[in-house]
Amino acid sequence: MLSVREIARRVANGEITAQAALAESEQRIAARDGELHAFASRPDALKPGAGPLAGIACGVKDIIDTAELPTGMGSTIYEGWQPRADAAIVMALKAAGATVAGKTQSTAFAFLDPAPTRNPHDPSASPGGSSAGSAAAVAAGMVPLAIGTQTGGSVIRPAAYCGAAAIKPSYALLPTVGVKPFSWSLDTLGLMAGSADDLGFALAALTGRAELDAAAAPLQGLRLGLARQEFTEAPEPACEEALQRIAALARQAGASVIERAAPTELADAFKAHGPLQDWEATQALAWEYANHREALSPKLRAYLDEARKTTPAQYDEARRQSRRGRHAAESWLGEVDVLLTYAAPGEAPATLASTGDSKFNRLWTLLGTPCLTVPLLRGPRGLPVSFQLVGRFGADAQVIAVAKALERLIVTAA
Amino acid sequence: MLSVREIARRVANGEITAQAALAESEQRIAARDGELHAFASRPDALKPGAGPLAGIACGVKDIIDTAELPTGMGSTIYEGWQPRADAAIVMALKAAGATVAGKTQSTAFAFLDPAPTRNPHDPSASPGGSSAGSAAAVAAGMVPLAIGTQTGGSVIRPAAYCGAAAIKPSYALLPTVGVKPFSWSLDTLGLMAGSADDLGFALAALTGRAELDAAAAPLQGLRLGLARQEFTEAPEPACEEALQRIAALARQAGASVIERAAPTELADAFKAHGPLQDWEATQALAWEYANHREALSPKLRAYLDEARKTTPAQYDEARRQSRRGRHAAESWLGEVDVLLTYAAPGEAPATLASTGDSKFNRLWTLLGTPCLTVPLLRGPRGLPVSFQLVGRFGADAQVIAVAKALERLIVTAA
Repeated sequence: MLSVREIARRVANGEITAQAALAESEQRIAARDGELHAFASRPDALKPGAGPLAGIACGVKDIIDTAELPTGMGSTIYEGWQPRADAAIVMALKAAGATVAGKTQSTAFAFLDPAPTRNPHDPSASPGGSSAGSAAAVAAGMVPLAIGTQTGGSVIRPAAYCGAAAIKPSYALLPTVGVKPFSWSLDTLGLMAGSADDLGFALAALTGRAELDAAAAPLQGLRLGLARQEFTEAPEPACEEALQRIAALARQAGASVIERAAPTELADAFKAHGPLQDWEATQALAWEYANHREALSPKLRAYLDEARKTTPAQYDEARRQSRRGRHAAESWLGEVDVLLTYAAPGEAPATLASTGDSKFNRLWTLLGTPCLTVPLLRGPRGLPVSFQLVGRFGADAQVIAVAKALERLIVTAA
Repeated sequence: MLSVREIARRVANGEITAQAALAESEQRIAARDGELHAFASRPDALKPGAGPLAGIACGVKDIIDTAELPTGMGSTIYEGWQPRADAAIVMALKAAGATVAGKTQSTAFAFLDPAPTRNPHDPSASPGGSSAGSAAAVAAGMVPLAIGTQTGGSVIRPAAYCGAAAIKPSYALLPTVGVKPFSWSLDTLGLMAGSADDLGFALAALTGRAELDAAAAPLQGLRLGLARQEFTEAPEPACEEALQRIAALARQAGASVIERAAPTELADAFKAHGPLQDWEATQALAWEYANHREALSPKLRAYLDEARKTTPAQYDEARRQSRRGRHAAESWLGEVDVLLTYAAPGEAPATLASTGDSKFNRLWTLLGTPCLTVPLLRGPRGLPVSFQLVGRFGADAQVIAVAKALERLIVTAA
């Protein structure tokens, strides 16, 4: 995979021009995208910007408004739709000097109906979703950076399935203005790149928060919690193996790894994700449902048929459970430096008909906590298997710092 | 002013058709809007819907997306702009049977540069802002209901200046999907109508929350807090007179009225509104600022020139102050049933060059608490003077119930 930091360094040093770095991405897209279908639309030419991300070609999920490219939402309902303005995150990319390499395929309205994208490691396996194109584009080395969104597990899951690193930062750290809403209490922008190091570099550049480009944390004395999310079903053995392997590496490097059972408030909050999303999605997609129900993708249509039965009382109870969950998480997560857990339930599904399951991501999206995934090993079908780091709300720099330290251990151990 | 409940009752009883009720509004618009400029665009014909708001012609602020009418944002930058979809609140109106009577004039991007709208009580006076057209359309009796948005005081202030009743409900009670953002932590949809009774009726119909159509609260034994917002300058004497008059009426009816000084956390939260809005507006309008700075209205351009200097650290501190303020407000407001305070600093400004000051509204918008204003008397220039009720977050039904009780006292006393 291409490295954001390395490209930026070369451009800053004058070793290559930003234009040449972009041309490299264009060539890689031309070579791979005919097979992978990661992109929904692309500009005629990539123009270099100025700033810390000059020369970085970035994929932007196709539910994010762009003034110079159509925004199709993964749905025929918005085919060819041209927004007036760039979303705030697109303006942040441009302000940092990055170049939009194209709009990446999204499942329809970021729900569960698969996008046309293929998994770069196996064309018959799912790339995950909903940010399928962003994950595949980074994992296939077409672009060094991509933007996705997560309402359940739509950033971390496809990144894990495709073998990219990704961060879903704290809720609202990245502004969602100009992003098609699905559930406004949950929708969160995230980044995909080749490494945790790149994620920190890019996130700092996009937010103007230098502390997010954190140095690797010292592992000696670090307290890592190991959480198995026992409120849902267990993952495939390869995911447990990945969790144990990273825990063992961390212990060898001097960290303490403590098994942590989640408090009951988090099990309740996990269940609250459903009605919270149901109520908000019903309103967020009210126009599409009322006017274009037959043109909705089948899983989304069936979902909205059911979701609209949610009552205000169910929604209010889900909000209260979310609030209690956030309070409980604040103290529970505060007892360790960072939590280690599964990123996904297994390798990528061996089918293009499913984008997989967000059950190991949904709770953290609802809690608004920073989540970061790094690929670690290969599963029995030869596909990437990752793990996930979770920190307290607002502790994005800490999660990045620990991820960078663990990432070095992985490289050393490999 | 037209009454939502009365029109709905007549339509439901078959005394008039929904079409005839809409035609009545159309005639009133035709008679008054040439002078008042409350509407930015209107459909060729008003088609009746089915539901509790059938026959209700509703004005919709022109920063709210409509699939069948352009959405100009009060700015030449979006002149003639046609969104693809209806905003969630527009779909809620339609689902309840209401009909969009037209898009109402907004100040540019809901900031401070005046809209072309006139105050129905005095064409040389400001209608306030930013929801100028919505307030004027209701106050002039053109429509019985209108939708506005408030980021500082953009619903309550124009309603008070024009002499309409209005509610800014708890944050996110009404979904802002499809509303042009200015500051996502603050932006809140609100309703304007002829009375608190109408506001409760309409809000219940739009949200599916029957309890918001609350019965008038018993005044005997009610505990009303009287707050002067001493963290900012005093209002004109007419506003103090209004506050004292409503307090006296409530006391005579058996309520206790207790003077309440705000805790220091609220004074801090009041100050936090600035940096919170500055940081978010900079990102929400990043595309407009970068690409159309010269076409921005002058106050907004000057504001964004300054606002963009806000640092992440200032923003984060403002968020912490907001959070502390919300916690403090929860217990402070919980010590009374509802708070009485000023709605605006005085009568409408005697100029079309200013939309007035949101200093008595900003804190409550930031706290996310329900606010409701009802006109009470006339000031020295003959313009309406109102007061404001504030309740705990989520206590919208209680605010409506008390407002209805006080409204009856006003009618009886008049």
